[in-house]
Amino acid sequence: MTNECGTNRIAGCQFTLFPMSEDFVDVILSALEQVDTSKVWKETDDVSTCIRGKMVHVFDVANAIFLHAVKSGKHVAMSGTFSIGCPGDSEGHVYMDETNEPMNQQNVQEIQQKAGCKFALYPMGTEDYMEKITEQIDLSKEWGVKVTPTHYATRLDGEVKDIFSAMKESFAKVQTVVNHITMTFTISANSPSNQ
Amino acid sequence: MTNECGTNRIAGCQFTLFPMSEDFVDVILSALEQVDTSKVWKETDDVSTCIRGKMVHVFDVANAIFLHAVKSGKHVAMSGTFSIGCPGDSEGHVYMDETNEPMNQQNVQEIQQKAGCKFALYPMGTEDYMEKITEQIDLSKEWGVKVTPTHYATRLDGEVKDIFSAMKESFAKVQTVVNHITMTFTISANSPSNQ
Repeated sequence: MTNECGTNRIAGCQFTLFPMSEDFVDVILSALEQVDTSKVWKETDDVSTCIRGKMVHVFDVANAIFLHAVKSGKHVAMSGTFSIGCPGDSEGHVYMDETNEPMNQQNVQEIQQKAGCKFALYPMGTEDYMEKITEQIDLSKEWGVKVTPTHYATRLDGEVKDIFSAMKESFAKVQTVVNHITMTFTISANSPSNQ
Repeated sequence: MTNECGTNRIAGCQFTLFPMSEDFVDVILSALEQVDTSKVWKETDDVSTCIRGKMVHVFDVANAIFLHAVKSGKHVAMSGTFSIGCPGDSEGHVYMDETNEPMNQQNVQEIQQKAGCKFALYPMGTEDYMEKITEQIDLSKEWGVKVTPTHYATRLDGEVKDIFSAMKESFAKVQTVVNHITMTFTISANSPSNQ
């Protein structure tokens, strides 16, 4: 399940986890405890968490943190931005020496969770970015998730793992034609609107 | 306080409000009830809310919704993406006929609230986007908020109104040199990490 594209460049994700409950601190800390973050650089402050490393690990960790937070059955959302090829972030980094084996496939294997997600790809520094976005959105139809266009974003509905896989593939494929890409997302599960 | 730049083009913001409490539905609905959204197109689903209209109203409504949600004293965050000049969103729109007077300056006037925010500007379709981003971040130092660079974003700390003003100015100014801009943000207030 690893994707080799982009493995020689540092990727990152700046995200925030939002458990809509009074015990949000416990939900966040408990999720973080159950996820193996040993292959990513990680920094958290009061606004967000930033993880950086190989693309495969950045997606693996983001997916696992969300799954461990939502398995409580509470309404939890996560919002953030993936980035790769940022000119300010291209220096060598110790976490780029890690192997490509994702650390959290086992510990999320049993978690089944449906979610809705809106994501948007932003290929930077290119004039024909709209064409590149459209190509990727077409591809995502094959990924086992329902794809719906919305204003400023594309909506994905399905299993959380399939949603993160679809975003990862989309993010990886656009790298074959564009150097610097950012991708925003908001994923939400157990919303009372759906019950 | 209106900014004329961009008033002839439709702007938008796709955002989600995250009250970290069991009564999150009440906090969201109560905030929405107290905000005058008559000058923007608005659509909400289980993942996010999208507002579209003149730039001045999009920022006015986003700022007011966050302020009315956080005045409860609860830990509330808001995350989203502002957009203007999106090629898929350039058609004429009934909300573009509204006057430029913001509708929520009065109803938020009394609300004092400190927050932390991370935002990132993405000028699209241009090769020298990094230079354009840096110019705006330099400017934001004058806006009464503390400005700190972080990975993939710039952090702003200060009063919520000043943070939204700084983001609006930054978003407006980069439009003088770039047509399509997106700007991501996550703003957080009353975090227990700061208490």
